[in-house]
Amino acid sequence: MTEPTTPVAPPPFTAADYAARRERAARSAEAAGLAGLVLTPGPDLLYLTGYAPVAITERLTMLVVPVGGEATMVVPRLELPDAQEAPGAAAVGLVDWTDGSDPYAATARLLQPGRYALSDSAWAMHLLGLQAHLPATTYAAMTTALPMLRAVKDEHEIQRLTAAGASADAAYAEILGVRFAGRSETEVGSDLADLLRRFGHSQVDFTVVGSGPNGANPHHEMGDRVIRDGDMVVLDFGGLQHGYGSDTTRTVHVGEPTAEERAVHDVVRDAQQAGFAAVRPGAPCETVDRAARAVITAAGYGEYFIHRVGHGIGLTTHEPPYMVEGEHQQLEPGMCFSIEPGVYLPGRFGVRIEDIVTVTPDGGRRLNRTSREMAIVA
Amino acid sequence: MTEPTTPVAPPPFTAADYAARRERAARSAEAAGLAGLVLTPGPDLLYLTGYAPVAITERLTMLVVPVGGEATMVVPRLELPDAQEAPGAAAVGLVDWTDGSDPYAATARLLQPGRYALSDSAWAMHLLGLQAHLPATTYAAMTTALPMLRAVKDEHEIQRLTAAGASADAAYAEILGVRFAGRSETEVGSDLADLLRRFGHSQVDFTVVGSGPNGANPHHEMGDRVIRDGDMVVLDFGGLQHGYGSDTTRTVHVGEPTAEERAVHDVVRDAQQAGFAAVRPGAPCETVDRAARAVITAAGYGEYFIHRVGHGIGLTTHEPPYMVEGEHQQLEPGMCFSIEPGVYLPGRFGVRIEDIVTVTPDGGRRLNRTSREMAIVA
Repeated sequence: MTEPTTPVAPPPFTAADYAARRERAARSAEAAGLAGLVLTPGPDLLYLTGYAPVAITERLTMLVVPVGGEATMVVPRLELPDAQEAPGAAAVGLVDWTDGSDPYAATARLLQPGRYALSDSAWAMHLLGLQAHLPATTYAAMTTALPMLRAVKDEHEIQRLTAAGASADAAYAEILGVRFAGRSETEVGSDLADLLRRFGHSQVDFTVVGSGPNGANPHHEMGDRVIRDGDMVVLDFGGLQHGYGSDTTRTVHVGEPTAEERAVHDVVRDAQQAGFAAVRPGAPCETVDRAARAVITAAGYGEYFIHRVGHGIGLTTHEPPYMVEGEHQQLEPGMCFSIEPGVYLPGRFGVRIEDIVTVTPDGGRRLNRTSREMAIVA
Repeated sequence: MTEPTTPVAPPPFTAADYAARRERAARSAEAAGLAGLVLTPGPDLLYLTGYAPVAITERLTMLVVPVGGEATMVVPRLELPDAQEAPGAAAVGLVDWTDGSDPYAATARLLQPGRYALSDSAWAMHLLGLQAHLPATTYAAMTTALPMLRAVKDEHEIQRLTAAGASADAAYAEILGVRFAGRSETEVGSDLADLLRRFGHSQVDFTVVGSGPNGANPHHEMGDRVIRDGDMVVLDFGGLQHGYGSDTTRTVHVGEPTAEERAVHDVVRDAQQAGFAAVRPGAPCETVDRAARAVITAAGYGEYFIHRVGHGIGLTTHEPPYMVEGEHQQLEPGMCFSIEPGVYLPGRFGVRIEDIVTVTPDGGRRLNRTSREMAIVA
């Protein structure tokens, strides 16, 4: 067993970092013809203030960042002490409300007639509450209105994503040495989760272990199925390290593969490489999907590749930009996203290969560095 | 250490249970003048179909339950196999959509002009997507439109909540024997989490350990503070067992309390009892809050009780009915909720005492049975 390296914690983001992000967000909103941004607990609020309440509940917490004005956050009174301690809260006005009062009235006073970008995952209950108060104010989902708010990562964010990717790679290298045949998917998944934590993840979000026919269900997580000699096994795993995500997939084989299994694996490997080769500043996101898909379609497996080829990653595992047909957004240096083509043969087996990639001035750089060749496990 | 009992798993809910719930939901919607219900992943969808996707993401999953029609669920194509396996899915039509297509168009075809109750925590992005497609269709948050959808628990649900409460009680009884003084809040919280799992919880959602002045911040979770002799310590803990929640609070003292500490504790204990005594079918929810609050106010601590007295509990920790001023909903047998008054003296200490209570035909029954007297710990 490789000794895990003790990851050095990157310096925390400062009040100045958060203030600069809010200023940039307000400028982007102005350029998009919006009156401002409305953020709720989750990645957007964390990005702009460093604040994450203990839990996301029915009690309204909402940050309003107006174009040309002061940012103000509405918080439940019993969470006020926590909000005051957030690293980016010093420059944000705080308005508290108590149980039994109307938090939408308190928030409505901060909004003007006009259109606001609203966090994707804001609760519908809260949006309906605001709509009832202010019929002349409208909202657009962040992914629609300002999809690039968090998409271009700065060097400190890329440092965190790189560290998360390296830990995922270390966990993958170790899992190749464990026993697969005769153990359940859940047991192998548990090993993988332990390894991710051991190599520095603070949180494990998913450990897909899809063996044999289960690998053909792309969202199968893991189950009681006992892995057998001769199985293909899809391993898709990730979590958070220093607040930023990892997401890696490799497909391994227990014992020697058949010629068909190897052929399908190599098609997916080549598709992944083709997607990677398409990464360069200025290329529309959809070209990454097309490049990977073309390889799979040419090999005759197009109908078995049933999802987009990738998604952005940062404070969350899935965020803009999406590498999907119809997405014309151009790639920019600093964007980070997955490239993860797959082929799923129902009732038989599946193959998926995924790396996180960041856009550089002259192409792409992989944040996962383990071999994409099919590994044989025992 | 008491030997943990191995909890017997209650029989799973059946396809017929889910069908009966959907039928009742549709009748309630009709009675409320609604065209139907629109549910997204989370407790509502779980309640009506038994289906919980592996993760709640930006990919739309939405169940439409119309008044007088067939329920239909829109799911991402790559999650279709999981949705088909849900226990309540057999009688639900499934419509899948692929990345790059418009899931809101697919959902809009299932909706009529009219008003629908929508899951509170549906993503705003999804609501905005539907609103853009169907301007003549409107939505109301479930908590506003059909707050009682999941509020009255049947005997199998109460059985689960009772088991979760008993496990929380067993964990509390054990934690009284561990060392507090000289250990950090985080260490004691970790003990508490281990005990909840040992006594049958599948998931621990929170373990608040608020010692000394930290106890005066009701949403403080736990931290590095080392607990000292002479500290009051608020312990508020809960999670899920067989899918249903626990949520219990006791306030303990390290060594002998001062007369003031004891007096505040006993006021809160009496307030909790007064709230419990107010529970009976037909009583408006707000009367439970008033009964508890009156005791604290009379003792001169009214301004330090800064939250509602309780919340419903079931598939989630916070759900209707809420025991709060202004809530006129009448209590009914089978409702289950917390009664948790508190007094928070800033910079000094806090006290909160919480039991889960279910409404019976002739009053209330506590699902937590440990003593509410102040326990002295070492």
